[in-house]
Amino acid sequence: MSVHPVLIDGAWRPSTGSRSFQAVNPATKGLLPDLFPVSPWDEIEQAIHAAHRAFQQTATWPGDRFATFLERYADRIDAKAGELVAVANAETALPVEPRLAKAELPRTTNQLRQAAAAAREGSWLRPIIDSKANIRSIFGSLGPVVVFGPNNFPFAFNGISGGDFAAAVAAGNPVIAKGHSSHPGTTRLFAIEAHEAARETDMPTGFVQLIYRTDHADGEKLVSHPLMGATGYTGARATGMVLKAAADRAGKPIYLELSSINPVVVLPGAITERGPAFADEFTGSCLMGAGQFCTNPGLVLALAGPETDAVLETIGQKFATAPVGTLLGEGVLKHLEAGIVKLRSAGAEVVAGGAAGGGAGFCYRNTLLKVSASRFLKNPADLQTEAFGNSSLWVLAQSSEELLQVLETLEGNLTGTIYSANDGRDDRLYDQVAPVLRRYVGRLLNDKMPTGVAVSPAMNHGGPFPATGHPGFTAVGMPTSIQRFAMLHSYDAVRPHRLPAALQNKNPTGKLWRLIDGAWTTGDVST
Amino acid sequence: MSVHPVLIDGAWRPSTGSRSFQAVNPATKGLLPDLFPVSPWDEIEQAIHAAHRAFQQTATWPGDRFATFLERYADRIDAKAGELVAVANAETALPVEPRLAKAELPRTTNQLRQAAAAAREGSWLRPIIDSKANIRSIFGSLGPVVVFGPNNFPFAFNGISGGDFAAAVAAGNPVIAKGHSSHPGTTRLFAIEAHEAARETDMPTGFVQLIYRTDHADGEKLVSHPLMGATGYTGARATGMVLKAAADRAGKPIYLELSSINPVVVLPGAITERGPAFADEFTGSCLMGAGQFCTNPGLVLALAGPETDAVLETIGQKFATAPVGTLLGEGVLKHLEAGIVKLRSAGAEVVAGGAAGGGAGFCYRNTLLKVSASRFLKNPADLQTEAFGNSSLWVLAQSSEELLQVLETLEGNLTGTIYSANDGRDDRLYDQVAPVLRRYVGRLLNDKMPTGVAVSPAMNHGGPFPATGHPGFTAVGMPTSIQRFAMLHSYDAVRPHRLPAALQNKNPTGKLWRLIDGAWTTGDVST
Repeated sequence: MSVHPVLIDGAWRPSTGSRSFQAVNPATKGLLPDLFPVSPWDEIEQAIHAAHRAFQQTATWPGDRFATFLERYADRIDAKAGELVAVANAETALPVEPRLAKAELPRTTNQLRQAAAAAREGSWLRPIIDSKANIRSIFGSLGPVVVFGPNNFPFAFNGISGGDFAAAVAAGNPVIAKGHSSHPGTTRLFAIEAHEAARETDMPTGFVQLIYRTDHADGEKLVSHPLMGATGYTGARATGMVLKAAADRAGKPIYLELSSINPVVVLPGAITERGPAFADEFTGSCLMGAGQFCTNPGLVLALAGPETDAVLETIGQKFATAPVGTLLGEGVLKHLEAGIVKLRSAGAEVVAGGAAGGGAGFCYRNTLLKVSASRFLKNPADLQTEAFGNSSLWVLAQSSEELLQVLETLEGNLTGTIYSANDGRDDRLYDQVAPVLRRYVGRLLNDKMPTGVAVSPAMNHGGPFPATGHPGFTAVGMPTSIQRFAMLHSYDAVRPHRLPAALQNKNPTGKLWRLIDGAWTTGDVST
Repeated sequence: MSVHPVLIDGAWRPSTGSRSFQAVNPATKGLLPDLFPVSPWDEIEQAIHAAHRAFQQTATWPGDRFATFLERYADRIDAKAGELVAVANAETALPVEPRLAKAELPRTTNQLRQAAAAAREGSWLRPIIDSKANIRSIFGSLGPVVVFGPNNFPFAFNGISGGDFAAAVAAGNPVIAKGHSSHPGTTRLFAIEAHEAARETDMPTGFVQLIYRTDHADGEKLVSHPLMGATGYTGARATGMVLKAAADRAGKPIYLELSSINPVVVLPGAITERGPAFADEFTGSCLMGAGQFCTNPGLVLALAGPETDAVLETIGQKFATAPVGTLLGEGVLKHLEAGIVKLRSAGAEVVAGGAAGGGAGFCYRNTLLKVSASRFLKNPADLQTEAFGNSSLWVLAQSSEELLQVLETLEGNLTGTIYSANDGRDDRLYDQVAPVLRRYVGRLLNDKMPTGVAVSPAMNHGGPFPATGHPGFTAVGMPTSIQRFAMLHSYDAVRPHRLPAALQNKNPTGKLWRLIDGAWTTGDVST
């Protein structure tokens, strides 16, 4: 079988590389037939130069052009939904329904369409006009963006169809997608549609490109290349840190989503009031999709006591009897196994699970661990090891003070959740817990599990390191996430007709929000 | 003479270090009498812990508290103006008038007051409310900030009184100031006022602290410490890169202003139309303050020809006859000498100046260099060496194409300027030049010199690397610059009374701008 071509500079070309790889069906552990290339540096460099040429054309284009492309692309994805779902199912073992067909695919096209709407509407540009000083500022595109997608969302975070892709394009940047090696067939199908949509909407060749795999050293060269604008990366922490170091040295923005164990604090009144309901919610959230979500509740903090023990026992039973999902691949299984070994070495005890097996293909028993807070405080670093998958660690504190001490040792996370009683009895403790947790998480929740990340302008799918590389940005939500792939452009005494339309005295659409002399308005600059 | 104490945890304490240093009067080259300590790591660590304790208290305070402190501090600085100006003059040789007393000091207190107004008004928080999903987001403080001030603005960029300080405090963060070793006496006077203002306005001890000098290794430990929130650094590129690497490894935001040569493109019609006026403007901008401004026009691009030669000759004469300013110190002189050696080695020819001397104290003759574009294109890296001071390099292109080629080799800069004819004859070339220049600069100007950085919400005192470490942020301008020292906080289904005031349904002041369901408004959430 021949090796699939790469998409470079507007054409599907045979790769110049000599190595290839195949994906694995995680449910059968069998190799899938298609061969995909490992791109050598000369090929990557061609993509960079093609992206730069595209950028030279598109840098001054209005948002409408990018919106048209994104919408056409979303329509084409919808038309190809059946094939996409089938291939993704074979490559990831994620269920066809509801997950792939009913949840992730519609979310993906919805995200692309929201990005299109944001690009057309333009408020992400944040135009600021100081009419007295005649200085005006606006965000603008910053150059080619490379997007590395993760393994766990073959659609919604795919390098060529996911949130980073949508945000980077909405900001007006060409994208070089680096597919994840676990689902190259899915990525290829997207790239075919993206390529066609780009042709149909007259985007320059080089605006959307795809490579499947690179050597690590070439990845570092790519993210730090002088012609590149920025990088989006979602994936394993170790690889992400290597790319981050390379991009940082070159002064290139890199947005990373690296790891998160999403602490859930369940206060005693909530346990008393609705322990069984909590056990249900927690189990559902933790085991859904075999726990392979960035916002999976991997750490629970509670006060020790008979009621907590009862809830823990209930959850242990639920974990033991719930079906064991198939993991995304052998790498995920090995990582999960290693994580649990590390947690156990640091003192965590197994309540349920704790061994591979129990389901089809690559799988690990639904695993519930517990550790005392005093033990946790002796080694908070190891006991915050991310065991990505269907696993969670409960930390049991003897007192509120001890619980607060545990919170003070947290690393940065995407989310932090507090369950408290409805009758007010936890309120004093809530007021102590919330400010500490707030410092370490991007999104604070009350009384609901952190899985499920709404595509909302107020969403923060971000947080302090190591959840991400910068706590001021979100990877999900339009138009907020677009901001990442932009640079600030100030215009000082630039002649009126040379200003971008969004900064001219007259509001270009009559609908664009602009901050004019300290007030947000959709009006014109009064002259 | 005894060594001055450091300001740690709300008290002036003798340093625990054994080493000290003195400042030098650049005009006389004589040592100034006061001794200042080099702080050892244990002292820095005490400051970090004190700042963290302060942060635990202030993290949930309303902006009004920080505003009150900033305003009191500004008032105290005004009352101490005479002494500040005298000490700064002795330490920097910057003229008392107009520079220090009439320009930089008022700018500094104005900046502090603008930061106070922004903290009180709150629009930097950017509250976003998605009422349907019940997700709400807002920016919040991120923890103790260390500010390293530069040598060239003893007031307006001082670690304990400048723009980064004002922005970090307005965002609600404690600040550890690291004074610049060239003006410790000035910094000390500010710290005395900051400390008193903090006491008078009931800020926690540890909210404002000062150390004068550290070992480089301790600087790296400071910016990457787990309890630190972020770093602001303005100064030399080499030191900044070391701090950046340390902060980046730890995933801590660091905002840097490293170097900028601020290209000025003067199109042929502008030379013909107003060559002599341009020569005056350029000379004034380039030699003001001995050229020691981050936005000094250090690189000029023009088309070669007799009219350009005439302007260049005029400027050369002006450079030769203008008074030679005193540089900020021996380090600046050595750096300038080395820069000019490097430029000359790469092919630049001396039109005027080119040697040390010509004025009082540490000084270097006003230096004008020129190089052909073809020579520039052979070694664009070396020919973009920043020769910080009263020096500038002209690049002379034989054609528009060659000029555009030079532009394509530019590194990132704070500013980029285009002078063009008023009668339209340069417009075609402008339209080719502007999009290229735009990619490499934070602020694009027309027909005026880049020196002079207005404190405007639309200002971008920032730009792509190496001008700064991230092209999306500005170091000057309220409320825009505050954003740097903040993290994004999302609230998902958080009970209404637990939300920050700015996110509750009722607008807390009736004046706060919030993005509610896609529209900016000062109203309430309709329920």
